[in-house]
Amino acid sequence: MARKQARRSPFGFAVPDVPASLDDVFNLHDFESLARERLAPTAYGYYASGAGDERSLADNLASWSRWRLVPRVLAGARHPELTTSLLGASAALPIGVAPAALQGMAHPDGELALARAAARAGAPFVLSTASTRSIEEVGAAAGDTGAPRWFQLYVEHDLAFARELVERAEAAGFGAVVLTVDLPVAGYRERDLRTRFSIPASVQAHLPPDAAGGDDTFVAYLDRKPPLRWQDVATIAGWTSLPLVLKGILSPLDVDRAIQHGARAIWVSNHGGRQLDGTVTAPEVLGEIVDATEGRAEVYADGGVRRGSDVAVALVLGARAVFTARPFLYALAAAGEAGADRAFEIIGDELRRALAILGVVDVAGVRRDHIRPAP
Amino acid sequence: MARKQARRSPFGFAVPDVPASLDDVFNLHDFESLARERLAPTAYGYYASGAGDERSLADNLASWSRWRLVPRVLAGARHPELTTSLLGASAALPIGVAPAALQGMAHPDGELALARAAARAGAPFVLSTASTRSIEEVGAAAGDTGAPRWFQLYVEHDLAFARELVERAEAAGFGAVVLTVDLPVAGYRERDLRTRFSIPASVQAHLPPDAAGGDDTFVAYLDRKPPLRWQDVATIAGWTSLPLVLKGILSPLDVDRAIQHGARAIWVSNHGGRQLDGTVTAPEVLGEIVDATEGRAEVYADGGVRRGSDVAVALVLGARAVFTARPFLYALAAAGEAGADRAFEIIGDELRRALAILGVVDVAGVRRDHIRPAP
Amino acid sequence: MARKQARRSPFGFAVPDVPASLDDVFNLHDFESLARERLAPTAYGYYASGAGDERSLADNLASWSRWRLVPRVLAGARHPELTTSLLGASAALPIGVAPAALQGMAHPDGELALARAAARAGAPFVLSTASTRSIEEVGAAAGDTGAPRWFQLYVEHDLAFARELVERAEAAGFGAVVLTVDLPVAGYRERDLRTRFSIPASVQAHLPPDAAGGDDTFVAYLDRKPPLRWQDVATIAGWTSLPLVLKGILSPLDVDRAIQHGARAIWVSNHGGRQLDGTVTAPEVLGEIVDATEGRAEVYADGGVRRGSDVAVALVLGARAVFTARPFLYALAAAGEAGADRAFEIIGDELRRALAILGVVDVAGVRRDHIRPAP
Amino acid sequence: MARKQARRSPFGFAVPDVPASLDDVFNLHDFESLARERLAPTAYGYYASGAGDERSLADNLASWSRWRLVPRVLAGARHPELTTSLLGASAALPIGVAPAALQGMAHPDGELALARAAARAGAPFVLSTASTRSIEEVGAAAGDTGAPRWFQLYVEHDLAFARELVERAEAAGFGAVVLTVDLPVAGYRERDLRTRFSIPASVQAHLPPDAAGGDDTFVAYLDRKPPLRWQDVATIAGWTSLPLVLKGILSPLDVDRAIQHGARAIWVSNHGGRQLDGTVTAPEVLGEIVDATEGRAEVYADGGVRRGSDVAVALVLGARAVFTARPFLYALAAAGEAGADRAFEIIGDELRRALAILGVVDVAGVRRDHIRPAP
Repeated sequence: MARKQARRSPFGFAVPDVPASLDDVFNLHDFESLARERLAPTAYGYYASGAGDERSLADNLASWSRWRLVPRVLAGARHPELTTSLLGASAALPIGVAPAALQGMAHPDGELALARAAARAGAPFVLSTASTRSIEEVGAAAGDTGAPRWFQLYVEHDLAFARELVERAEAAGFGAVVLTVDLPVAGYRERDLRTRFSIPASVQAHLPPDAAGGDDTFVAYLDRKPPLRWQDVATIAGWTSLPLVLKGILSPLDVDRAIQHGARAIWVSNHGGRQLDGTVTAPEVLGEIVDATEGRAEVYADGGVRRGSDVAVALVLGARAVFTARPFLYALAAAGEAGADRAFEIIGDELRRALAILGVVDVAGVRRDHIRPAP
Repeated sequence: MARKQARRSPFGFAVPDVPASLDDVFNLHDFESLARERLAPTAYGYYASGAGDERSLADNLASWSRWRLVPRVLAGARHPELTTSLLGASAALPIGVAPAALQGMAHPDGELALARAAARAGAPFVLSTASTRSIEEVGAAAGDTGAPRWFQLYVEHDLAFARELVERAEAAGFGAVVLTVDLPVAGYRERDLRTRFSIPASVQAHLPPDAAGGDDTFVAYLDRKPPLRWQDVATIAGWTSLPLVLKGILSPLDVDRAIQHGARAIWVSNHGGRQLDGTVTAPEVLGEIVDATEGRAEVYADGGVRRGSDVAVALVLGARAVFTARPFLYALAAAGEAGADRAFEIIGDELRRALAILGVVDVAGVRRDHIRPAP
Repeated sequence: MARKQARRSPFGFAVPDVPASLDDVFNLHDFESLARERLAPTAYGYYASGAGDERSLADNLASWSRWRLVPRVLAGARHPELTTSLLGASAALPIGVAPAALQGMAHPDGELALARAAARAGAPFVLSTASTRSIEEVGAAAGDTGAPRWFQLYVEHDLAFARELVERAEAAGFGAVVLTVDLPVAGYRERDLRTRFSIPASVQAHLPPDAAGGDDTFVAYLDRKPPLRWQDVATIAGWTSLPLVLKGILSPLDVDRAIQHGARAIWVSNHGGRQLDGTVTAPEVLGEIVDATEGRAEVYADGGVRRGSDVAVALVLGARAVFTARPFLYALAAAGEAGADRAFEIIGDELRRALAILGVVDVAGVRRDHIRPAP
Repeated sequence: MARKQARRSPFGFAVPDVPASLDDVFNLHDFESLARERLAPTAYGYYASGAGDERSLADNLASWSRWRLVPRVLAGARHPELTTSLLGASAALPIGVAPAALQGMAHPDGELALARAAARAGAPFVLSTASTRSIEEVGAAAGDTGAPRWFQLYVEHDLAFARELVERAEAAGFGAVVLTVDLPVAGYRERDLRTRFSIPASVQAHLPPDAAGGDDTFVAYLDRKPPLRWQDVATIAGWTSLPLVLKGILSPLDVDRAIQHGARAIWVSNHGGRQLDGTVTAPEVLGEIVDATEGRAEVYADGGVRRGSDVAVALVLGARAVFTARPFLYALAAAGEAGADRAFEIIGDELRRALAILGVVDVAGVRRDHIRPAP
């Protein structure tokens, strides 16, 4: 099955030359089987896997559906307006590309392709610290469409190096720093261990020099360093005029502290089920976290978002935007940049249709009574 | 297996000449496999499919069973009376044919066959705007048995044309207008997209001239028009002396407004799971909607009704009648009008038996303590 | 598999001559597969089937497990005493044979075999009106062990004939009349319809003369008669000095009336899932029904009892005894009377073990805090 | 598959000579399939089986996941400290080997191997009365690492003999007596009955002389004896200066009495689902039992613990340590002592990672708001 025309990506992974046909792609799920056929098994496993027994991986997908939608009639627009503002910037779509590592395994263009597709869609794109393309390349590729382009920061734990990254990101036109706070230890994904997946030493573009050099080096590096702390958040916020987003919060009890330490937004996430198996999922805590902000910070969410109706639930719960990564990676692997364009088109259309039937004219129109817990 | 004797229906779909034997049909489910064998895959897919991941399609079927029946002993009739009145007219059965489009794909006689079978059973029949037979043909075919015969109206969004339809329906002896209010956008049913199903241009009998001509034309037409609004409901109610039913309401919060704008009845429906995947189902909101009417309007329900016990639950929750479409379409495809007759016989018998064991003598005898939430 | 040595039972069904080995029978479930191999498919279907979609059939089996057992330590006997009294008579086991029709299909000895096995076990046996052996034969066969032997009465609806049956039962040494009150209409079991199962005209031992003669005759007979009413209960209670048990009650709201009309015991049952699909199950309402008696009547339960732990749950909820039929029919079909003996031994041992671990010394020792709803 | 190089263990069971490779063992589940290949089916069945329908066996595994973890960010150590104290002694790991019978079936070294591995890991080891090695052998093998080494006591019911065992255990350096209180009758595990599993007469090292001699002898012995009672607990506590742990408590109502009769710790357990099927599980009652102690006793738990996240849930609910047996038996069968070492390494790493992501620096840092019931 396929892979005949495979060539090497610059990152050592085989990807086929010829993009898959999008004729039978009608939803985001459809990209996954196409991608699975085309990706190296180690790469597919890396993208697809979760921690432990992968319960959270499955829970993420299932838990948006634990809320039922309650449409209101005769009140909606046929094509509700999806434009929103995120940290003061305008986005045409409240759905963005979450910061996924190693996008070069899906396609030679890697992060460049997804950044360009997001920009075309007016959607937020978040570049991972563990990218296969540099901050500057991605900043240049995305152009100046006004769509939010943010930089995700791991600080594990060389503050001087991290500061350099933040300054590079600011210089390259990125509009916010998304500080990941749920990685005091590396996730333990057994699929990767079984496939002997290893991050090629060459691809760790934004790690401190003594951390680069493959998985073992990175883990050893981490072990030498103290973990990130609340006081570091304030320090990091002070380096830049860019707004700071804290990504990986799951407890409403962490919200106040996040805001007090300078967070302008809270990103609710269990890291795609890749860090600690068995945690709460975003839709289980999102509403409470929004309430805990008391309007002082924007809230985003990720984890298992695949349908416009999932996005609608998140908006109803008070998220200002949602993010997802795997569908975009699969779209990229399946059909390159055209695949990513199609992914944005699909999820945008689905959200528009969902909002129309919910009976609203724009994303601001949703209210808590638009959902109920499923029985 | 079958299709040997297939001929073309006037609507371009192959249906076999020889009706299936009804010897092994003991419940409404049994019609589906017979129909599936006989229908063109595109036609079967059109009838069977739902929106999105088809969760609501499955939820509809499952959710009547989330209520448990609590029989009372030594109180029922052996053959409880099923006669009821709907909008002032008498019906021998509180179970009707929901307005399904394109019945001509199931059988050359299409809507004529189901209208005649419903009339014989004394059951309500609702003709879809998107029928394959004209208002006048169906009005004439059904004869004058006194069973309720209503006209379902899409107003998307040519008021003059809609008014013409209402006047034609009234002239043809239809007794109510069922205005569908949950279709601000066309449903997105991926099964239809995968089978490349397309509505033949010739069959759209009751669309405005500039909307007819196949799916693309219709969608383009919709895009040019503003969606239906609450004020339009009052306008439409004013065109006719026929009572107005609003079909597609799922929120108790919409009830008051519906009544104030002239609705004489509320039809609780998620459009058979065909519009927005993930909504509440009728049995989840029916009781609250009935309560919200405070007796000012009748309430009907549809979605996943397959068994007399489902109907009993709906009656207990306060519905005055329930509707279903797929089982009748499958019965029609399986064995023509005789199939439809048998479907009415089965569901009527099942309801009678359920009410007998619940311990009532007629449909008015059910009370809320006849059900409990399943554990 | 098997059936080689089959011969005709007097009721026209093939049963093998040679009993199955009991070497691998360790619980009541084990009898079913043995029986299925040996019974005519129509007979197996008749025993095994339920009404409608057979949801209640499955719910019955599952719902005892919706209560979790909470053992207390260091308080029980190693072999707790199972003896109890039922309607003033002593029973060595609080587990009896529910009145199942047509036991002659399982074994030529039919009701005689199960009555004898129950008597040996000191367990209650309830003879069905629709038996294949006469009241007098069963009365004589069971002997005088003191174990409760009751007669189940259908009154559908020839009071003179019913009175004759009650007088025959009293004369034959039966100790109570179990009046079935949940059969205003015959159940509709589709498995029987699909197998074209029909009750042989010859076997309806205790039906009025104009009702005998096969299913059609019986159904026609029922249709000519008014259903049983509350006032009939008082009438029937007045015919005999035997205590009256009302079987088939599921609503706590029927308890008071039952007692006022002369019931000395309430039998909670959904008729093995054979009457109305989708009802509540015994474990869902048993506790409330016990509470509603306020000690004025004994309460029994049936439906899905297969394990000693199921019996323990029923006792905790306040049942004085539980009944089950299918396991005894399967045991009988598998290995004749020896099979039934083994069935009593197994369920008795299981109950004893359950009570020992729950920490009680006899059946009276259980308390409501011995169970909790499963999460 | 395998077993080619099998030899006899001293207890009559075949185990292969060559240990399995641990290269593909990434979690505790992985040991089971390796062990299953290598163990005699009777031995595997004995370890793996549960009582009745094995619902509790499955519930145990599933029920830790009915609690969701709620991480707190920026607060944890990278390598949280796992050291705790149990009954005043230090343990490097709050995860121990539960007292499992007949470890010699898994490996010729039996209890010696697991005791040595636990000692190396600093983890508690509990020797079963029904061991295949003597108290003195195990005491000597484990050496003096300071890790808790306890003796589990069955008193069924020869107090003089039991006292002798306690004195031998104390002399052999065991630090606590774990009195099992949930075995008034032997469990009834049907898998063992189907495989005709029988405990070899030679292996029952610590049974009174008139009880030894195989299953039948033991069961007959039990039948001659009264069961253990609360007053016996106080008697046993008086024999020794060792602290007494009561193992097998599931009701919060038993806690006070346990403490009053001299228990220094409560071990919440349903005996691995091997005694009474259908009981509550540890995670369902653990929190309440901890609350009932009001700090007067330590609480432990077992049953279905397979993951560090399970251990974390137990700690959050207030357990001071958790125990598990099957994974260690399977590890032992798979690869001998090296397997057991790996098992401790895996579960310790998983717990450390879970605590790091929960945001604590040591086991004492967990709080009840670190978990929520799963929806």
